[in-house]
Amino acid sequence: MTTDQLSATFAALADPTRRAILARLSDGEAGVNELAEPFAVSLQAVSKHLKVLERAGLISRTRTAQWRPCKLEAAPLGEVSDWVERYRRFWEGGFDRMEQHLAELQKGDRND
Amino acid sequence: MTTDQLSATFAALADPTRRAILARLSDGEAGVNELAEPFAVSLQAVSKHLKVLERAGLISRTRTAQWRPCKLEAAPLGEVSDWVERYRRFWEGGFDRMEQHLAELQKGDRND
Repeated sequence: MTTDQLSATFAALADPTRRAILARLSDGEAGVNELAEPFAVSLQAVSKHLKVLERAGLISRTRTAQWRPCKLEAAPLGEVSDWVERYRRFWEGGFDRMEQHLAELQKGDRND
Repeated sequence: MTTDQLSATFAALADPTRRAILARLSDGEAGVNELAEPFAVSLQAVSKHLKVLERAGLISRTRTAQWRPCKLEAAPLGEVSDWVERYRRFWEGGFDRMEQHLAELQKGDRND
């Protein structure tokens, strides 16, 4: 079973610690120790979160000799933005009349 | 254990069938049978997906006598948009020089 990119991105974002890690990385690259500092979780737990983020393409890790900094990779977030944008008219309101109109059109051929 | 709203929203969106259901509902309200039609899944599976979407506040269901249409509730999508917006400068590029500058600043006090 393969997971599509957008599903992998959303799944990776469904955790407050992982989102906080991305927020930290938006200030610049950071190593695992530095990323773990603000959280009441083990280095091991942070490493797991980093693996999820890396698999979803949301971070990359440079392989240098002694320091392996994590870097934000925002392309998947651009896809999230594109996806959610199409719903903007719904949360910005002013859509009630249109919605009502569609509902009335549908009453005609409704059969469940 | 409680899940924060944004995590619940992202988890609900981490499934292509659930996203397709939201896309269908953006055209207007629909009943379970109608929502199940395009998918090669059972009514029961679709009902489960609807429960996840409902718990995340992404849909609501009217309790009428014979027909319980599902309706898109887009407020949580507005929160997703607000969250992802702050990363726009990263996926829109032109950020490499700034990033490089920050990386250089960090080299000074790096200790992990």
